[in-house]
Amino acid sequence: MKGIVDPSRAVGSSLFGGAFSFPVMVANRDALEHNIATLAGFAADHGLLLAPHAKTTMSPELVRAQLEAGAWGLAVATPSQALTLREFGVSRVLIANQVFDPAGLDAIAAQLDQDPSFEFLCFADSVAGVETLSRHAGGRPFQVLVELGHEGGRAGCRTLSDFLEVATAAQEASGVELVGVAGYEGGLGNAQEVRAYLGRLVEALEHLRVRDPILSVGGSQWFDVIGRELATCQARVVLRSGAYVSHDDGYYRERTPYNRIEGELRAALEVWAYVLSVPEPGLAVVGFGKRDAPFDEGLPVPKGAVEGATVLKVQDQHAILRLTPDSTVKPGDLVSFGISHPCTAFDKWRVIPVVDDDHTVVDLITTYF
Amino acid sequence: MKGIVDPSRAVGSSLFGGAFSFPVMVANRDALEHNIATLAGFAADHGLLLAPHAKTTMSPELVRAQLEAGAWGLAVATPSQALTLREFGVSRVLIANQVFDPAGLDAIAAQLDQDPSFEFLCFADSVAGVETLSRHAGGRPFQVLVELGHEGGRAGCRTLSDFLEVATAAQEASGVELVGVAGYEGGLGNAQEVRAYLGRLVEALEHLRVRDPILSVGGSQWFDVIGRELATCQARVVLRSGAYVSHDDGYYRERTPYNRIEGELRAALEVWAYVLSVPEPGLAVVGFGKRDAPFDEGLPVPKGAVEGATVLKVQDQHAILRLTPDSTVKPGDLVSFGISHPCTAFDKWRVIPVVDDDHTVVDLITTYF
Repeated sequence: MKGIVDPSRAVGSSLFGGAFSFPVMVANRDALEHNIATLAGFAADHGLLLAPHAKTTMSPELVRAQLEAGAWGLAVATPSQALTLREFGVSRVLIANQVFDPAGLDAIAAQLDQDPSFEFLCFADSVAGVETLSRHAGGRPFQVLVELGHEGGRAGCRTLSDFLEVATAAQEASGVELVGVAGYEGGLGNAQEVRAYLGRLVEALEHLRVRDPILSVGGSQWFDVIGRELATCQARVVLRSGAYVSHDDGYYRERTPYNRIEGELRAALEVWAYVLSVPEPGLAVVGFGKRDAPFDEGLPVPKGAVEGATVLKVQDQHAILRLTPDSTVKPGDLVSFGISHPCTAFDKWRVIPVVDDDHTVVDLITTYF
Repeated sequence: MKGIVDPSRAVGSSLFGGAFSFPVMVANRDALEHNIATLAGFAADHGLLLAPHAKTTMSPELVRAQLEAGAWGLAVATPSQALTLREFGVSRVLIANQVFDPAGLDAIAAQLDQDPSFEFLCFADSVAGVETLSRHAGGRPFQVLVELGHEGGRAGCRTLSDFLEVATAAQEASGVELVGVAGYEGGLGNAQEVRAYLGRLVEALEHLRVRDPILSVGGSQWFDVIGRELATCQARVVLRSGAYVSHDDGYYRERTPYNRIEGELRAALEVWAYVLSVPEPGLAVVGFGKRDAPFDEGLPVPKGAVEGATVLKVQDQHAILRLTPDSTVKPGDLVSFGISHPCTAFDKWRVIPVVDDDHTVVDLITTYF
């Protein structure tokens, strides 16, 4: 198992005590617990329901902790992920996406029929999407949020009239129950654009004849604006933040709402690896790469003994560093890196040691991608 | 399990028959078999030993097929991968990398002591590296190739005198057996640079007093040059190509030696996904993303119904396409993509359906990253 040589003595030992092989990615327990509690608190304080996006971690241990902290449900991106969450024992799952996958829908419909406590929601932004859902529904309907997008955005109806056409189709189709409106504000560039878009979502919601409707919005970058703007909205507002669980030292560190409001999230993930080679003065080759750490929204962030070094590039299994002029880093040094973009970090590991601040391993979390 | 709803009826059914969930990545059986046979044939024809780089696939089924086709051994990048290959039953493993990881080395030393048929080799490019190996060796020595690099390259001694210092250390250290020279030509820009570098490797080899030495070189881009230049070399030349097994429709399609010599490799991997949304004319959102297909050395390559479309970007779970003006692609269409860069394709899937040309699933291959 990548990162773990001896699972039998992994928990309770030091990360550096011989049970672990390097590179390894670890998660700091206090940071995870702090982050889960912090966003649960934020949601409660602002009257929001939290459906953490489980695609970030796909980890039963973290999903359980999120539910214990009061999450309303969990969001995912695909039927496959929804079915995996069912195996984790999750009873309310929102696919924050259009769904066309027949086998996935059939399996979800079967679960709805088998388990009366299972609640399932997904998006539609086309009549074709509604019709597909209708075709695969079982005895209990698929609950549907019609997605309203924005120009330059991803999916979602671009106009109110398109939105209403899909909503009408959802209200008329058998096997489908219209329950509200969905949007995704994560691609917008500033708070003013987010406010304008949230206003359009609220306007769209007002056109629906739905009892106790849901308004679901995304991400991890604008929940402060969402909390303020939607506080008086006549709907259950469901927030789908995902990356907050581990936070990071790069992309989300720069973009978290906690740069604007009181509070903080803490970067939980670190990758540890050996310096394999210093083939030229100032150049270090470190034994981790694209397989081990995200590289798509910022490169790994050197910490500790390599703080201040520049990651020149990452290859499949190597990171190439330009060291600082005063660096004494040499082959055989064990060094650490923060990461940027949690969603492409967890999926590189099947087991992640959870450590305390002394790097004693206190637990293992698993992932199912 | 991502991509598979019903494992019990997966093999023998159509990919589109209800056992599979989308997105899914499949591998074409004929292409895999052709590629494995082709590179085995190339190596045999040129008197090279083949140690395919298993880091590409980490798949027991493919590793077994490579061994059955005559591979001399398998290459990997880390101790963890070496131990995984041991679980696959591989008896000759080359870590094509410097190794400092204590727990990994201890576990490998224990395996050397337990299994007299296990052969293990790795690289060193520093005296510190040799000393670490010596410190963790068991009753049977670690076989070591001293790596000679090149300016602007990754690891490897930059000068012959550095190389000889490490080689001498390897010859004198207990628990370490010097067996030859290693290099990596994959980062070089043209055949002339590759020839010059291969010449330096041969020169370095001539300085070693080693019986029946090994000269190991890399990759998948220059094996034609290697075959020609090292044909008369007084060493066992071990080639570590990895990406050839699946080949691709992007990075390696452009760079394969078969663009210069007779023969071909065939792109084996395809990702299938549903069109989730066409929110604006000409813009399609497809249900696969960074979690499902490589994006680091070229974006996915639209095929079939989306051929000619441009992948504008990939997100965690979505690909955004600019369609061709005459496109009739609509939500609910199932579309396919070739991939670019096999090494970041296999690691996104734990199970990959193997299909024939009609997309009947004939087998499943597993991966252990």
